[in-house]
Amino acid sequence: MTIKEMEGGVTAAKGFSAASCAAGIKYKDRTDMALVYTKKPAAVAGVFTTNVVKAAPVLWDKEIVEAGGFVHAVVLNSGIANACTGKEGKEINYFMAESVGKELGVKAENVLTASTGVIGMQIKKEPLMKGAELLVKGLSDTTEAASDAAKAIMTTDTFPKQCAVSFEIGGKEVHIGGMSKGSGMIHPNMATMLSVITTDATIDGKLLQEVLSEDVKDSFNMISVDRDTSTNDTCVVLANGEAGAPAIEAGSQELEDFKKALSMVTKSLAKQQASDGEGATKLVEVTVKNCKTKENAAILSKSVITSNLVKTAMYGSDANWGRILCALGYAGVDFDPEVIDLMIMAQGEELVLVENGVATDYSEEKATELLSSKEVTVLCDMKEGNASATAWGCDLTYDYVKINGDYRS
Amino acid sequence: MTIKEMEGGVTAAKGFSAASCAAGIKYKDRTDMALVYTKKPAAVAGVFTTNVVKAAPVLWDKEIVEAGGFVHAVVLNSGIANACTGKEGKEINYFMAESVGKELGVKAENVLTASTGVIGMQIKKEPLMKGAELLVKGLSDTTEAASDAAKAIMTTDTFPKQCAVSFEIGGKEVHIGGMSKGSGMIHPNMATMLSVITTDATIDGKLLQEVLSEDVKDSFNMISVDRDTSTNDTCVVLANGEAGAPAIEAGSQELEDFKKALSMVTKSLAKQQASDGEGATKLVEVTVKNCKTKENAAILSKSVITSNLVKTAMYGSDANWGRILCALGYAGVDFDPEVIDLMIMAQGEELVLVENGVATDYSEEKATELLSSKEVTVLCDMKEGNASATAWGCDLTYDYVKINGDYRS
Repeated sequence: MTIKEMEGGVTAAKGFSAASCAAGIKYKDRTDMALVYTKKPAAVAGVFTTNVVKAAPVLWDKEIVEAGGFVHAVVLNSGIANACTGKEGKEINYFMAESVGKELGVKAENVLTASTGVIGMQIKKEPLMKGAELLVKGLSDTTEAASDAAKAIMTTDTFPKQCAVSFEIGGKEVHIGGMSKGSGMIHPNMATMLSVITTDATIDGKLLQEVLSEDVKDSFNMISVDRDTSTNDTCVVLANGEAGAPAIEAGSQELEDFKKALSMVTKSLAKQQASDGEGATKLVEVTVKNCKTKENAAILSKSVITSNLVKTAMYGSDANWGRILCALGYAGVDFDPEVIDLMIMAQGEELVLVENGVATDYSEEKATELLSSKEVTVLCDMKEGNASATAWGCDLTYDYVKINGDYRS
Repeated sequence: MTIKEMEGGVTAAKGFSAASCAAGIKYKDRTDMALVYTKKPAAVAGVFTTNVVKAAPVLWDKEIVEAGGFVHAVVLNSGIANACTGKEGKEINYFMAESVGKELGVKAENVLTASTGVIGMQIKKEPLMKGAELLVKGLSDTTEAASDAAKAIMTTDTFPKQCAVSFEIGGKEVHIGGMSKGSGMIHPNMATMLSVITTDATIDGKLLQEVLSEDVKDSFNMISVDRDTSTNDTCVVLANGEAGAPAIEAGSQELEDFKKALSMVTKSLAKQQASDGEGATKLVEVTVKNCKTKENAAILSKSVITSNLVKTAMYGSDANWGRILCALGYAGVDFDPEVIDLMIMAQGEELVLVENGVATDYSEEKATELLSSKEVTVLCDMKEGNASATAWGCDLTYDYVKINGDYRS
């Protein structure tokens, strides 16, 4: 099966339209609400933050997804996260779903919600009412509408994050498209900060949930910007069946194809988020290979990607490999440090820094040249098995401190 | 019992002398080796890094401490950590102990070692030989000798860290004094980056080990600068009995007194390290109270103290309490977010930011004023039990990025 990457995002799949508007929730002079809509009800799957402190929209969506119903829309806002807002926050969230539902002529229970921004502030009702009206009026299935929606949900992001692919099921062209946002407070645990993925494939909600829950382990759950798992992490997939392709069955080749295509979309979105980490100047990929178990490989690669000392060394383009070995060492997984090889890769070149736990006589100049690239890969060979995992992150820079040390307003 | 704080460090306890010298291991124009010596052999206890990647001196000390023998000296160096240095590193470490032992007329096995600095470089033998000679010649039991030793083991530290106390056992004055270093790669797990504590109390090595292992849970293991557990973390306590006080027995009141006095020294050293975290402008203390278990309280307080987002908000003196609740939420401990109270305290004043999970109408101006202090305390009331724990850390600043993004050389 061939999977083709294509332009676009949430409107790439048939029957899905999108809209955005400037509702004035908190930001001035920019869009801050987005809507994704399908007339034909969609099966839905979702994964949400494991943070004990869950935002009101997360609690709302979880309930709908777990009930296994169908949904027509996802409404999202940026500026205020509607987290730590108590009973009032829950009421406001219901109002948000209800307002959009009324305009669309569907029940509030068929509308998912997602919010991102400052924690602890209440959203006002007026902009939500105005926003609901504008959004529904503005619905369109163009590529532009999708990318405008992706822009409207940005906070400290510097670019909108989208991805879409097409492939065939039973001779019919099927699409998966998605958008996501996230730049800080990124250390997803079960999902990432706001991601909406649409598909016109026909797939049962339960099966879709299984696929998504498995998928995020290798995509969104493998990125980290600052080790802070958000209160709002939400990733939902809507499948409306509009492609007219045969239903995807458990255990079928079609399911494997769908998994591969979904994985392309989620990994692309996840990597876009990591490379747009707050203040980041480069995308850092860490692959740990030849581990005893995949779980160990994941723990080790995430430990390296989240180390502040590794991240600052990456910023300085300094081949300070001792910090990488140190981060592997405290990950909580046992291994033999005296057999490890460590390589860096960039611009199609590879440089071996460590062989069997001690430094090679590599050129520091060459190492700095490679580490100065926009995308850098660190490869750790543990030589104890054949499981591997890859994690994505970014460097830690002055700008991260600036963005997060500055006052909220 | 009264515990008196006094001037000094490792020479405060009777029978201990110290020395420092500029051996030229890596740094130029500054001291880089230190020695602590007791003629009367001392019972010894030690706690070491749990990092799988352990430096050569850590492996050496662990073996000696676990064998339960007596020691005469600890030799330390800064500049190079002797970590990830393979077989050659182990030989060099033995050479370091042996050289000092020869000058002192004791066996290498009675000399502990500790190294701190760059990972992956080899220490040369020449400066070690020269250093051993200079150190043994320079031994002195003055306060100055102790503080010079504390200075010699500094790396990115901005001030030497010492503490000493005196108290009575069986009518005899007994002392505990210590020094430590550590500013980056600070997230001790079982101990901290190089700490030597001396006492003239009489206590069996096994009992001393129990006391130390318990003590670090509330002191060194509760600080974090950057969540990076070092390869070299070492904390040793030497007890030579020179005070002539009765031996401290298990289960006695004297043991409780000794524990209290030791805790004063270790907590002081730990807090000094946190406040001198790389690039830090302030000491941040986080107390989580009224938890179900002490373990939970410790996990929660460490989660807040290590959050990059909390640390940058502290740098910006921004009362961004949502980040604190968020960090509690992803700590991995269950609780009810809707009952939590959250206070900040500084300059003898207290400000309630959150009551029962939602914001009070506190003054942002007042909050910023309090958060601009050199020492800030965050108090989280979980209202579900009566266990509490305190962790110490610091803010995350431009200077942290500068110090660690700069090239190693």
